[in-house]
Amino acid sequence: MEKKIAVILGDGIGPEVTQQSIKVLNAIADRFGHSFEYSYGIMGADAIDKTGNPLPDETIDTCLKSDAILFGAIGHPKYDNDPTAKVRPEQGLLKLRKALQLYANIRPVTTYRALQHLSPLKAKQMEGVDFIVFRELTGGIYFGKKELSEDQSAAVDECTYTKAEIERVSHLAFKYAQGRKKKLTLVDKANVLETSRLWRKVVQEIAKEYTDVAVDYMFVDNAAMQIILNPAQFDVVLTENMFGDIISDEASVLSGSLGLLPSASVGNTVALFEPIHGSYPQAAGKDIANPLGSILSAAMLLDHFQLAEEAAAVREAVDWTLANGFVSKDIDPVNNYTTTAIGDLITEHI
Amino acid sequence: MEKKIAVILGDGIGPEVTQQSIKVLNAIADRFGHSFEYSYGIMGADAIDKTGNPLPDETIDTCLKSDAILFGAIGHPKYDNDPTAKVRPEQGLLKLRKALQLYANIRPVTTYRALQHLSPLKAKQMEGVDFIVFRELTGGIYFGKKELSEDQSAAVDECTYTKAEIERVSHLAFKYAQGRKKKLTLVDKANVLETSRLWRKVVQEIAKEYTDVAVDYMFVDNAAMQIILNPAQFDVVLTENMFGDIISDEASVLSGSLGLLPSASVGNTVALFEPIHGSYPQAAGKDIANPLGSILSAAMLLDHFQLAEEAAAVREAVDWTLANGFVSKDIDPVNNYTTTAIGDLITEHI
Ligand SMILES: CC(C)[C@H](C(=O)O)[C@@H](O)C(=O)O
Ligand SMILES: CC(C)[C@H](C(=O)O)[C@@H](O)C(=O)O
Repeated sequence: MEKKIAVILGDGIGPEVTQQSIKVLNAIADRFGHSFEYSYGIMGADAIDKTGNPLPDETIDTCLKSDAILFGAIGHPKYDNDPTAKVRPEQGLLKLRKALQLYANIRPVTTYRALQHLSPLKAKQMEGVDFIVFRELTGGIYFGKKELSEDQSAAVDECTYTKAEIERVSHLAFKYAQGRKKKLTLVDKANVLETSRLWRKVVQEIAKEYTDVAVDYMFVDNAAMQIILNPAQFDVVLTENMFGDIISDEASVLSGSLGLLPSASVGNTVALFEPIHGSYPQAAGKDIANPLGSILSAAMLLDHFQLAEEAAAVREAVDWTLANGFVSKDIDPVNNYTTTAIGDLITEHI
Repeated sequence: MEKKIAVILGDGIGPEVTQQSIKVLNAIADRFGHSFEYSYGIMGADAIDKTGNPLPDETIDTCLKSDAILFGAIGHPKYDNDPTAKVRPEQGLLKLRKALQLYANIRPVTTYRALQHLSPLKAKQMEGVDFIVFRELTGGIYFGKKELSEDQSAAVDECTYTKAEIERVSHLAFKYAQGRKKKLTLVDKANVLETSRLWRKVVQEIAKEYTDVAVDYMFVDNAAMQIILNPAQFDVVLTENMFGDIISDEASVLSGSLGLLPSASVGNTVALFEPIHGSYPQAAGKDIANPLGSILSAAMLLDHFQLAEEAAAVREAVDWTLANGFVSKDIDPVNNYTTTAIGDLITEHI
């Protein structure tokens, strides 16, 4: 199989973790006789430094000409505490999501027995936890009208949703649920928000087309509790953009290590794969970051190419490093391996 | 001291838990020589059933004529899954918050050693946890313009904040921080939202007036992780309405029992006190609900009256029931006491 992969290294630890994934993908290509061709684009603080623009048009072009995108991480603290900054790294990612219509962010929440000692939760809390969050990614308050009054004394963010926006991500989530435990939970705030009531109405309608899927509805404040209190109750969680940002990050603590979690952002054409961790600037360039989030994102990319056996080979190699203690500093502060070393071990194992 | 207390029993288990608080307040009045006069108002599903209106004007009047409000709980499932319902219980509570300008919702997050076995978190996670969430309660997306297009294919919720709205709750939070561990964390999404950038700017300015308070800024998605990963880092958490709803409910799981947590909603004049748990309709009328959330809310009410010794007496009595296993079914499914029995025990102890 021949595939074009756009690579955006991004900010902070983005470049060093993504380099490991490329090694891993090359090992997969070798072993299974595929050819992956990489083209590089820039985005985020990196792109602002180089061009003044968090997402140059060439990067969008590069992505559109590819079959999938592998992305590192975004963000730099120098922009975070300056509420008046006109250009910010995150604008690049938001613009890319919109430009490529990556309307569904998919985050599996898995737990690793080898990491249970790192989890903030008791072991019994984690039994049977295996769910997946579908977050709408191109609508809602992220992309609504924004205003700051001229005298800077008032601000507005508008949250909007259309039926069509809700439908496309919902169909995707229902289809996933059909291939899993056949349960879907819509998370909203329908007792307060008009957009949430639209979500609930549209999902109630769509549910009729998926009669084998059991649907329930949960307010976001309750969901924030249930994810910790009883995470095993969930199978597919579907929610809007802002709630999804919060809920999926919260869910990520269950695993015991944020550094391990992958995500996919899919649309109608090209899809993007990235670890859920941030750019973690304090660790950048130190070769201590955990590359597994990126490498498992590469596994999701292989799944997206319908290369199930290849994806399984990557996951098996990752499990092997965990089982043998070939782990980074975030997982074992005493005996640990560098980012590069872990990438090499997985590459060789494959 | 003579005080007028408005009582809103509300929905579900609201009435039965609030009745226990009234007994407790009467015991306090007896012991310390105060006089509390109660007047009753209706709100929520209860008020809809009786009048068609989730918050009749008489209830607002009753509240305005009082020194404080003791409230039970709101909500009924028959409204939740009907996205087209025109009248909903929650509208009553939202309207009351607005009418009385209860702009700050204050929720202490405490942990009880006696309940550690019930907490989803490991014991070491909970060491030193003692923080308080300040949630802005009368602005933001809760009260912004709401629209559903005529063909019902699109919906809008507007989130707005003014500098003045941010200032008043922020000053309150900074003052609390001064009396505590002198740390304040603003939770926002300043990398995406204009309103969050306004929050950050205003809080940065106000911080200059409270030089003894250390301030930090955290994105809400990160906060959703940190509350579980490292809750001991927080002292005072300040945030806007919608984020506060999610974050404070999430934080409530730390204690091991939602049924124990109180809250205060304060404004410039009258203040309202309510347990954070919901109306829990499945348990209504069964005399099994945990009355401690309501009783500890009554303790906050006494604090609000500057009756510190009296408030301490209530908390001491609550601790005594916990230490002696006089607990409700949610805390001990095998050996437990009824709502009424726990109320009586606390009343007698005082
Ligand atoms: C970087 C930021 C804009 C982004 C978001 O909020 O969507 C991130 O938190 C994420 O979840 O991918
Ligand atoms: C009942 C509901 C409208 C309310 C809210 O969202 O504010 C509740 O969840 C709360 O936190 O007091």
